[in-house]
Amino acid sequence: MTNQENPFLALAAPGIAGLTPYVPGKPVSELERELGISGTIKLASNENPLGPGHRAREAIAAALPELGLYPDGAAFELRRAIADHHRVSPMAVTIGNGSNDVLDMVARVFLQPGTESLFSAHAFAVYPIATQAVGATARIAPARDYGHDLAAMAALVNEHTRVVWIANPNNPTGTWLAADPLRTFIEGLPKTCVVVIDEAYTEYVSEPDFPDATQWLDAHPHLIVTRTFSKAHGLAALRVGYALSDPRLADLLNRVRHPFNVNSLAQAAAAAAIGDCEHVRASVELNRAGMRQLTAGFERLGLGYIPSVGNFVTVDLGRTAAPINEALLRRGIIVRPIANYGLPNHLRISIGLEADNARLLAALEDIVKVL
Amino acid sequence: MTNQENPFLALAAPGIAGLTPYVPGKPVSELERELGISGTIKLASNENPLGPGHRAREAIAAALPELGLYPDGAAFELRRAIADHHRVSPMAVTIGNGSNDVLDMVARVFLQPGTESLFSAHAFAVYPIATQAVGATARIAPARDYGHDLAAMAALVNEHTRVVWIANPNNPTGTWLAADPLRTFIEGLPKTCVVVIDEAYTEYVSEPDFPDATQWLDAHPHLIVTRTFSKAHGLAALRVGYALSDPRLADLLNRVRHPFNVNSLAQAAAAAAIGDCEHVRASVELNRAGMRQLTAGFERLGLGYIPSVGNFVTVDLGRTAAPINEALLRRGIIVRPIANYGLPNHLRISIGLEADNARLLAALEDIVKVL
Repeated sequence: MTNQENPFLALAAPGIAGLTPYVPGKPVSELERELGISGTIKLASNENPLGPGHRAREAIAAALPELGLYPDGAAFELRRAIADHHRVSPMAVTIGNGSNDVLDMVARVFLQPGTESLFSAHAFAVYPIATQAVGATARIAPARDYGHDLAAMAALVNEHTRVVWIANPNNPTGTWLAADPLRTFIEGLPKTCVVVIDEAYTEYVSEPDFPDATQWLDAHPHLIVTRTFSKAHGLAALRVGYALSDPRLADLLNRVRHPFNVNSLAQAAAAAAIGDCEHVRASVELNRAGMRQLTAGFERLGLGYIPSVGNFVTVDLGRTAAPINEALLRRGIIVRPIANYGLPNHLRISIGLEADNARLLAALEDIVKVL
Repeated sequence: MTNQENPFLALAAPGIAGLTPYVPGKPVSELERELGISGTIKLASNENPLGPGHRAREAIAAALPELGLYPDGAAFELRRAIADHHRVSPMAVTIGNGSNDVLDMVARVFLQPGTESLFSAHAFAVYPIATQAVGATARIAPARDYGHDLAAMAALVNEHTRVVWIANPNNPTGTWLAADPLRTFIEGLPKTCVVVIDEAYTEYVSEPDFPDATQWLDAHPHLIVTRTFSKAHGLAALRVGYALSDPRLADLLNRVRHPFNVNSLAQAAAAAAIGDCEHVRASVELNRAGMRQLTAGFERLGLGYIPSVGNFVTVDLGRTAAPINEALLRRGIIVRPIANYGLPNHLRISIGLEADNARLLAALEDIVKVL
């Protein structure tokens, strides 16, 4: 619906008119409905092809008899499990219905018309959406080699900046920031803004100078670190993310948190998953092999890609990617076009099971040949 | 944490300083941890003592293999099931992570500093919270016989009013509004505000002149009707609610909706539950018998109560209810104190299974005798 057709916009808060919702990866069911096909594979949403581990599955089964009761609004067990895992106080933990929910809480607490949030070109789409939803202004720093240019970001910080968002690794590019420059950047920020380090993909990274920003929380009270159970923990269906921060920041985030924002099965699954190092390790190993498989395939096909430390890799088709994406869809393969991230020639491909990666590569080879 | 101790408040948006989160019913696990007891019953959160029906349970079981995948962001199947049930277009449906989420979307779209929302004394606590969270001003009309005084509400409508909230039946009082006066009230509202009729408890009502406000949507484009799966459908653990409205209003609500706000198991369960009339009927019948049991018990004990058409009844203890609530907790019975609703002498008691209702009445008899 266009804004011109919507008379109710005249009653709406600032920001709503300019707000375009997030575009999720196309669900398998939707594509199969549209095309009348089956056997579709989805390498579009950076999901874990193993799904959750057995501990999470068992916890869900144990929670099924209590579906008539509201979730624990304080999420006592889940917050304790997260706090124990990170060796912080439960008061430092804010749970979210996915980390999207936590990111949105940050925007609702710290942003309003007249204030600014800052992020990089090619940054996660939820940062501009959360900023726009509260009528604040987004400042977008240019990228360097598809990744964060911290000097360019620092140059855009001013007295109106209230939130700086950095995903490390970044989505959709898979680029990453080393510990020293990131910490120096955080130290240089004025105390009039908070900085969010979004570590949704952190479990996949093995680079030795890749930081764990949760270690910096004590020294940097303006820091908020977000994590998710949707990636390495394989629980995307259930929506659980969290923030770690100074408890005084967590107090403000929790004021705008809905009391039952994470449902009972999600709480139970996540509390069990966080200690399941074995499943995370298996997921990371599968990802590493899949990354080698895909990048070797791209090289064989003569396709460029952005070196990625995540569970996805963004391939450079050297021309408009939309027709290639359409051709993949017709073959029942869903990947993610990222023109809306300023990358119209790229497709972001999530790393799947070996057979699915191979099917993607074979389809891409066929399509690139004839197009 | 008090505001004085929180230096980050200086950076926060208007509304955050005055924001006190919703206080949920105490979870059984929390009470048992605190008191070192077991065998607790909870008649505090208006839950369905039967839980969900078998159709919802089977739908959850069928969805369990897909936990690694994101939910369908558009909730195609669930919105279609809701739309079919109400004979409206799927474009009229906005799904929420509980109806709390939908109520909050309304506030985010239509309220901001300088605008007002209007509700009655003793209204659902989420209305003032959602209003405060976006920095708008709450106008509270006095109640009449614990219920809505529509004339008093109409008198408070002005050019700044953007949202009018009415729960029918009302929570926590169980009072209700008949079709004619409510429709007349809605017709009299200026087109500069939307009106939310919150029908969370509608399934429990059998009064012949009780309205189904969804029937008024065509004639009243400024109307938003909300429903929930947490009560008669017995799915409180999973968090699913929805709004029906003019599609142009739904468009705006969906702009602030998080893309994956209702998780996959919740979507599957709710889509199956909405057609399970048999389970709703059994739940309503159990509730009717429990209501007779509780009100007869109160009369026997000489305790007043507010006549209720919901799945709860609010008992008037004729003195400060807090010590009686404490005494019930020590006996492992959780009910809801509602001093924060302006009713310090009342306790709201959810209708449970026959044995639990009997245990509550016996405990109350003992306590009232000695206090």
